Amino acid sequence: MAELYLEDFAVGQRFLSATHQLDAGQIKAFAAQFDPQPFHLDEALAEKTFFHGLAASGWHTAAITMSLLVRSGMPIAGGLIGAGGELTWPRPTRPGDVLQVESEILAVTPSRSKPERGMITVRSITRNQKGEAVQDMTTRMLVWKKP
Amino acid sequence: MAELYLEDFAVGQRFLSATHQLDAGQIKAFAAQFDPQPFHLDEALAEKTFFHGLAASGWHTAAITMSLLVRSGMPIAGGLIGAGGELTWPRPTRPGDVLQVESEILAVTPSRSKPERGMITVRSITRNQKGEAVQDMTTRMLVWKKP
Repeated sequence: MAELYLEDFAVGQRFLSATHQLDAGQIKAFAAQFDPQPFHLDEALAEKTFFHGLAASGWHTAAITMSLLVRSGMPIAGGLIGAGGELTWPRPTRPGDVLQVESEILAVTPSRSKPERGMITVRSITRNQKGEAVQDMTTRMLVWKKP
Repeated sequence: MAELYLEDFAVGQRFLSATHQLDAGQIKAFAAQFDPQPFHLDEALAEKTFFHGLAASGWHTAAITMSLLVRSGMPIAGGLIGAGGELTWPRPTRPGDVLQVESEILAVTPSRSKPERGMITVRSITRNQKGEAVQDMTTRMLVWKKP
């Protein structure tokens, strides 16, 4: 797919990413480094917690979502540069889940002060293989106008 | 520090984490796995981009923030379980940055339907060694009442 500039985006456009299969090893490796809590590290201990079984860190789900967006989700010219956003995790991500991200353009906003750029607002829903949302995120991303 | 229950939290309380020093190797390792873009992977290529030098993925800053919160930020009984939140990255995180998270309790909300639990709303600002905010995040976290 060709690289996309601000002029290429329109409200309502959708982009579907490739998929990523999660396993217990990935969940534990991320957790050991960034979110060392029993429900992300140990199946037996996780059974006794709120999650009733091993679950990925929400920040791991967010990182995988970014990976899918960068590799296959939305080819923005100059890269995917987020200014921020909001996200929720409606349900846990589990070992064996196959994740896929669907993104929809909610707004396209040229900059008032910087004529060469603008922002897009993107809602990206990360779903598991059953089609259930595991993350619902809305971000604002920097996009360049055509040179 | 003792583990904290819903009754232990009050609006305005603050918690200061330990610190984490970032380096180029960590930035590139995270990016190779989760955010493989030139400005997160290669100093020379990064010079020619929006970031004018190597910068950490925002999701890496978020993951380090979570690590600091889990290890030293706020000892919630039963663990730190986020329902979601919003975040911005006011400026890039760079190699050599020493990150620290200051959290403030914005709201304490007992559940109406589930008497054993509630939610806290927490603003966590991640700063570099100059005191500059590199991430500003507000999350809602599940907290249990005293058994």
